[in-house]
Amino acid sequence: MTSDAPAPDLPSALAFAQALIRCPSVTPEEGGALGVVADALKQAGFTISRPVFSERETPDVENLYARYGTKSPLLVFAGHTDVVPPGDEGAWRHPPFAGETEGGMLYGRGAVDMKGAIAAMLSAVLGFIRRHPDFNGSIAFLITGDEEGPAINGSVKLLEWAHKRGERFDHCLLGEPTNPHNLGDMIKIGRRGSLTGAITVEGVQGHVGYPHLARNPIDGMVRLLAALKAAPFDTGTAHFDATNLEITTLDVGNPATNVIPGEARAVFNVRFNDIWTPETLAAEIDRRLREAAGNEVTYRLDLEPTNAIAFLTPPDAFTGFVQDAIEAQTGIRPQLSTTGGTSDARFINSYCPVVEFGLVGQTMHKVDEHVAISDLEGLAAIYHGILMRYFKVAATK
Amino acid sequence: MTSDAPAPDLPSALAFAQALIRCPSVTPEEGGALGVVADALKQAGFTISRPVFSERETPDVENLYARYGTKSPLLVFAGHTDVVPPGDEGAWRHPPFAGETEGGMLYGRGAVDMKGAIAAMLSAVLGFIRRHPDFNGSIAFLITGDEEGPAINGSVKLLEWAHKRGERFDHCLLGEPTNPHNLGDMIKIGRRGSLTGAITVEGVQGHVGYPHLARNPIDGMVRLLAALKAAPFDTGTAHFDATNLEITTLDVGNPATNVIPGEARAVFNVRFNDIWTPETLAAEIDRRLREAAGNEVTYRLDLEPTNAIAFLTPPDAFTGFVQDAIEAQTGIRPQLSTTGGTSDARFINSYCPVVEFGLVGQTMHKVDEHVAISDLEGLAAIYHGILMRYFKVAATK
Repeated sequence: MTSDAPAPDLPSALAFAQALIRCPSVTPEEGGALGVVADALKQAGFTISRPVFSERETPDVENLYARYGTKSPLLVFAGHTDVVPPGDEGAWRHPPFAGETEGGMLYGRGAVDMKGAIAAMLSAVLGFIRRHPDFNGSIAFLITGDEEGPAINGSVKLLEWAHKRGERFDHCLLGEPTNPHNLGDMIKIGRRGSLTGAITVEGVQGHVGYPHLARNPIDGMVRLLAALKAAPFDTGTAHFDATNLEITTLDVGNPATNVIPGEARAVFNVRFNDIWTPETLAAEIDRRLREAAGNEVTYRLDLEPTNAIAFLTPPDAFTGFVQDAIEAQTGIRPQLSTTGGTSDARFINSYCPVVEFGLVGQTMHKVDEHVAISDLEGLAAIYHGILMRYFKVAATK
Repeated sequence: MTSDAPAPDLPSALAFAQALIRCPSVTPEEGGALGVVADALKQAGFTISRPVFSERETPDVENLYARYGTKSPLLVFAGHTDVVPPGDEGAWRHPPFAGETEGGMLYGRGAVDMKGAIAAMLSAVLGFIRRHPDFNGSIAFLITGDEEGPAINGSVKLLEWAHKRGERFDHCLLGEPTNPHNLGDMIKIGRRGSLTGAITVEGVQGHVGYPHLARNPIDGMVRLLAALKAAPFDTGTAHFDATNLEITTLDVGNPATNVIPGEARAVFNVRFNDIWTPETLAAEIDRRLREAAGNEVTYRLDLEPTNAIAFLTPPDAFTGFVQDAIEAQTGIRPQLSTTGGTSDARFINSYCPVVEFGLVGQTMHKVDEHVAISDLEGLAAIYHGILMRYFKVAATK
């Protein structure tokens, strides 16, 4: 079972990637990017839907759902065409929306996160369908335009929308950039959860010359933060690193060196594994703070609502197909990982097993975001290899 | 030995205080206040000098030195006519520069800090000289217009200026508001020193999802601050409270909850007693930080230059005269204290023993600063009683 190259009259992954990068689809702008995807899939015989979702106080966002075939199993390619802003365009070596190539690299905002991966999906899927139009199953594209922004009118609503229409996904492949260094390094089979909270310690303001008339909230804050970090929350699980809490900021804002301030505020973020839910973690944090505070520190804990739970897609045959296809193309057996930030996989996970594999993430969100053209074509070959394995199709001669 | 009332044709302490308050002498403005003092002293036979001191990047400031008599001992009355800004004048019950009285109180900026005390000095000294023109000694006034501001063109230069002219002070009485609650509560016979410093902890910025690639400076800062506060610096001395360190601010300013910040900064202020010099204290702080940091925390300690050393005027006969005069007037034996902030006494202390006694400080620097008229006249009687005792003059019939 080896990958077979797409037909020569189909656009390459590079051509799709250039077309997508040239659409300035900074969230929440569609910028023509979903149109590029829709046109390519329509020509290949997909049924296209482009639902727009709205919610008060957020911009309307366009999304795309496309399906080819009616049989089971249904394999979904998921991703987003929106990109983060380019920042100072003058700082870019190549304009961020020009899709220019140089020295074997394609430059542009979204090159790796993740227009490049969507281009590879299009190239792989179009080639696969051209050669195996009657494969035993269905393929869908679930593409949002709201992943980098508020993420309110994106994947969550698109998944609900598809589910209500009776769409039942068997497996999903999400094209986020998962590789730290080289194409093939890493598959993500889950993600840690994320919980953010703020601690406010109330003191009594006063003059530094009269400390007995004041109560310095910084002393209490130092005590609470030391207690929060004193012991690890756990030592990790089979597929997850240890839960980790970081204090992300700590601010008093007192400009007067002769004044004891009245209040101190800290913010923390926890990346937690599958031992915890947001609720059990909140209870543990609260317990640590209460114990450290005793009757001496007056504080308030405010936790932000979170939908970033920890989740795991236990490795199954599909995971094996992905690993095999990667190894066949790159010679690297990819690591199964749950590290890094959160992604839309946490939403997809409620509907079907989801695995993430895409490009090398090093330049994502940075100036001069770029991808090796060989990685683009390599990723297309890997996606094609996954399709071959998943739908048990023999390579054509 | 009892105090004797000033002659009825001399202005009362209240009248002087009203005249002074009506001069809007917010630092660095003279506002006419030094003129009020100069006119009154000139009429009483004082020789007046009004040196103006300058320094680059600070406003020029007027000061006053006046002397009566040529004999020893020379007793100096010291103080300042400048005041802090009134803030929102509309919030005042009585306009801050009107000198209005109501219900036995005189209202206005400077009523207690310290135009009221200067008025009491004028009233006491003028009455004393009228009755005892040939007393065995000299009296001087050392009044600055730059105590509440940068304090660069004020007492330090005025003291040097007077010293260069051959003026040799035997004792000094500084009229800062020293009483916490009632006239007579407290004399200051020294002041703690003050040392301010900043600690900057350098970390490595990164994404909270990849803590192994970052180093959170807040963790290091919590460790350093806990170590700084872990043990007392001392337990106090005969006349001083324990040295005390307060962390006055702590700022990171990181708005992103998914980012581990790169730097954290804290500022502290130490009020220290006569066990320490700024140098020995700096060494102890540095030792505590180095020990806590080990090889794991990268930090920088920046100490502000300080001229606020700890000093003590050991109680002597003069201190006894002040206590006796207070007790004779108020029935209260005042406490000898070194508490509170710093004052110009730390500069005067290099030239002669200095004791501070003035009004009740409760409303200083606040809206509706005010003084009981009975306190003004009581303070004048106390200052008069000090003159009687110091110059060993028997009360007139």
